[in-house]
Amino acid sequence: MGKTVAQKIFDAHLRDEPFPGTKVLSLDMVFCHEITTPIAIDDLVRLGKDRVFDPNKIKAVIDHVTPAKDSKTAQQGKVLRDWARRHSIKDFFDIGRNGVCHAIFPEKGFVRPGYTIIMGDSHTCTHGAFGAFAAGVGTTDLEVGILKGVCAFRQPKTLRINVNGTLPKGVYAKDVILHIIGTISVNGATDMVIEFGGNVVENLSMESRMTLCNMAIEAGGTSGICAPDMTTVEYLWPFIKDDYPSKEAALEDYKQWQPDADAEYERVLEIDASSLEPMCTYGYKPDCVKPVSQMTDSKIDQVYIGSCTNGRIEDLREAAAVLKGKTIADSVRGILSPATPDIFKQANHEGLIDIFLEAGFCVTNPTCGACLGMSNGVLAEGEACASTTNRNFNGRMGKGGMVHLMSPAAAAAAAITGHITDPRKYL
Amino acid sequence: MGKTVAQKIFDAHLRDEPFPGTKVLSLDMVFCHEITTPIAIDDLVRLGKDRVFDPNKIKAVIDHVTPAKDSKTAQQGKVLRDWARRHSIKDFFDIGRNGVCHAIFPEKGFVRPGYTIIMGDSHTCTHGAFGAFAAGVGTTDLEVGILKGVCAFRQPKTLRINVNGTLPKGVYAKDVILHIIGTISVNGATDMVIEFGGNVVENLSMESRMTLCNMAIEAGGTSGICAPDMTTVEYLWPFIKDDYPSKEAALEDYKQWQPDADAEYERVLEIDASSLEPMCTYGYKPDCVKPVSQMTDSKIDQVYIGSCTNGRIEDLREAAAVLKGKTIADSVRGILSPATPDIFKQANHEGLIDIFLEAGFCVTNPTCGACLGMSNGVLAEGEACASTTNRNFNGRMGKGGMVHLMSPAAAAAAAITGHITDPRKYL
Repeated sequence: MGKTVAQKIFDAHLRDEPFPGTKVLSLDMVFCHEITTPIAIDDLVRLGKDRVFDPNKIKAVIDHVTPAKDSKTAQQGKVLRDWARRHSIKDFFDIGRNGVCHAIFPEKGFVRPGYTIIMGDSHTCTHGAFGAFAAGVGTTDLEVGILKGVCAFRQPKTLRINVNGTLPKGVYAKDVILHIIGTISVNGATDMVIEFGGNVVENLSMESRMTLCNMAIEAGGTSGICAPDMTTVEYLWPFIKDDYPSKEAALEDYKQWQPDADAEYERVLEIDASSLEPMCTYGYKPDCVKPVSQMTDSKIDQVYIGSCTNGRIEDLREAAAVLKGKTIADSVRGILSPATPDIFKQANHEGLIDIFLEAGFCVTNPTCGACLGMSNGVLAEGEACASTTNRNFNGRMGKGGMVHLMSPAAAAAAAITGHITDPRKYL
Repeated sequence: MGKTVAQKIFDAHLRDEPFPGTKVLSLDMVFCHEITTPIAIDDLVRLGKDRVFDPNKIKAVIDHVTPAKDSKTAQQGKVLRDWARRHSIKDFFDIGRNGVCHAIFPEKGFVRPGYTIIMGDSHTCTHGAFGAFAAGVGTTDLEVGILKGVCAFRQPKTLRINVNGTLPKGVYAKDVILHIIGTISVNGATDMVIEFGGNVVENLSMESRMTLCNMAIEAGGTSGICAPDMTTVEYLWPFIKDDYPSKEAALEDYKQWQPDADAEYERVLEIDASSLEPMCTYGYKPDCVKPVSQMTDSKIDQVYIGSCTNGRIEDLREAAAVLKGKTIADSVRGILSPATPDIFKQANHEGLIDIFLEAGFCVTNPTCGACLGMSNGVLAEGEACASTTNRNFNGRMGKGGMVHLMSPAAAAAAAITGHITDPRKYL
């Protein structure tokens, strides 16, 4: 039998197999942020093991609560900052240079096809968009990764999802992944890698592939993966142009990270994109998914556009296309958090920031804060938010609050009307 | 004897004098924000007196922690929002439309010469820049103000400060007020109104006059006051153009709020502006003031440009003039919070936001947060901030943090070098 992308990456990184089925892999990257890493740092210091396996393979950012909202978060940032300086971790992104981890690390060119990546963050699966195996881990794994550059995984099975057809107008990668999670449930990919393919995925930008892979974890997936292709090469070219004589040569090299034609999948799911419409969540699980058109009675108090799921330039463009020349409802608070400073700058150069400001949005800095109810947009009891983020768990954006996950265009449409709204109305 | 501006305003608004020296004044405006007003609202509700004296004379904004950083602040915003809706307070500025109270209320034209204004906020004295009597009050006074439209004050004495000469390059209203507070001490104007005059004040923009009056409280002053003149009329003209046949007619009317030539002052202080240089604070009291040139050994971890003191367009222009084409030090986190959405938009149209972003600043939304250590830029223990705000009390921006107050230009210069720096170096 042939191999999946994940199997190939596992084989190439295998260091040890201490127990049958438990694979110790060498790591190409360990990503860090200021909420989970300081716990690992403090523990390593306590154990007298305040070392890092390779400062060039560790990337760190303060992104969850930025700027600091209180003494505790200020101290968390300081622990990460001092550690990065102490160990000469040159790719440390402090406040002002910082963005949402899963947006800024790819943007800076830290991800490559075939890489193994861990981070103490559940949405690390995002980086699979580049044909990498990227997984969120707990503190102990993070500590070992920082110290030794290895991590133990069970060999994952792979769920193959082929998305074919044509995405209708107003339907985006976010709608596809919401539809998938609604179809397979929040446990549908537990202990599996989701390998996305099909002509729709092949035609998606890297940004949209990141949106797709980002939410693999919401179906229980260890990682999402899209096989690398010329789109991947084009995105990475500024970072790899000295490594290859041509883009074609890079593509040829990256082909080693494509699945074999006869790869063994646990399950294969076929999605017909042409039949999809704008989707959103109801309730408190990401698989509670309905078409937006069936949810238009739901009142919205806040609209949030940002996060590692949908805070990229493409997302801002899609939302701004809906908002242009319009004013959001008086009853709605709109919040835009471009996911990185470069996205902020680019959006500004394209006039998008102006569109959001003129519409009445609060334009805030890059941060994860609101998505997980930690800062910059926490809901009060009884409030509902149309959000481009990834989780609608009970209390996720604030105790007693309801989160409706949807695409940036749908969130923008909800901002205009004050209730869940089909964005095609404005396209 | 003639009268000061404050005496004239008191006389014009006198409703009652229940005890000798205690004057009950009618109020023209009651300003509200989400930290102190919900306490008053909850109390009025509890007392069965959930009413407002005049919804058109009450203006409310969510500004201190925006967007909400946690459930508590989300709830505080909700209490204010629900109250504003319940009482048809149409001038309520929710997240996205909100700005720092003492910046947005003047910007919206809510302040007039001769007005009496209270707010549950110590820097309410800012509005005296328009020739108003504006004072911060406690919760009980705020409740009475909301319910009855009156407030009791002791008749204040007046400290007259004449600033004459010529402001040297790199020296701004902020340096003048820091110098004044350093001269008269934090108790120098206790129970007094500070009436600012002299040719320097006459030549200041309204923005700079607000900076001056804003910090009257830091010398103990009840309010700062600048007599209205044509600069005041020009600023207010968009809001008063239907009330007067001409600007000259408005000015003629406003002259009633000028002090008499023989007004009785408690003390008169003469300041020679020509001898001033850029100033900043050391220590934990606003009267610990030294020339910046004597503080250049002080290392800076964070630079904050914003607040009711110095977050206006003029301030952003001054800081951007220093930052243009430069990158801030790696060791520094720069934070810019334009004080209102209109300032944000204007700064963007002028290319200033780009300058801050390119320099490496974190551009965040309008909010008071960092100034009082409530959000968006709290310091960790042992950190120092060069800040354009108004208070350097111990722990003001975070427990164990040090705040050096200075002008926007000086703060920008510190951002570039990583230590306190004379801004004239970059002008």
